[in-house]
Amino acid sequence: MPEPPYYAVLFTSRRRAEPGGGYGATADRMEELAAQQPGFLGVESARGADGLGITVSYWATLEDVRAWGRNAEHLLAQKFGREKWYQWFALRICRVERATEFTHVDEA
Amino acid sequence: MPEPPYYAVLFTSRRRAEPGGGYGATADRMEELAAQQPGFLGVESARGADGLGITVSYWATLEDVRAWGRNAEHLLAQKFGREKWYQWFALRICRVERATEFTHVDEA
Repeated sequence: MPEPPYYAVLFTSRRRAEPGGGYGATADRMEELAAQQPGFLGVESARGADGLGITVSYWATLEDVRAWGRNAEHLLAQKFGREKWYQWFALRICRVERATEFTHVDEA
Repeated sequence: MPEPPYYAVLFTSRRRAEPGGGYGATADRMEELAAQQPGFLGVESARGADGLGITVSYWATLEDVRAWGRNAEHLLAQKFGREKWYQWFALRICRVERATEFTHVDEA
């Protein structure tokens, strides 16, 4: 990751009790496709036992975020998401202003 | 949630294979304590089967974020996190610039 500022797209969601087909393959394909886009910096994703999912993708600029949002294959996945898969979601576009990282080093 | 702009504190983490004691109780206490702070708007959290955890807390202003970061009980939890619980974490302070929400309505 570069030094801030950069952008984070924060997607929090709950899937339906009986989501329509194709969810897993499309989710995998969207991660693969996102990684090929200009300005893509990385993605992190977690879905807990209670069903809440959080996916964060990181982008160099706001224009990169917008271009990904308008990608034709991504637009189709968004449509399926609304029609078949999600009970609820929130999408937030965020400017990352500070970032710190910690890695534990074992005391040998 | 109010209209943007507001702030998101994005905490992504991996716990150690054998984390020290007290993690669960402290995590619960921090959610309870955060909710009592000025400017707290909400929190969302997920930890997936692969061990990656993502917690996002939302705050009205950057000053609210900073005050929570300096809270004495929270500082102690941060110290335990580095010493006992986390293999790795990243902490990002983000300004939420746009937010949209979707709720599925069943066609009756």
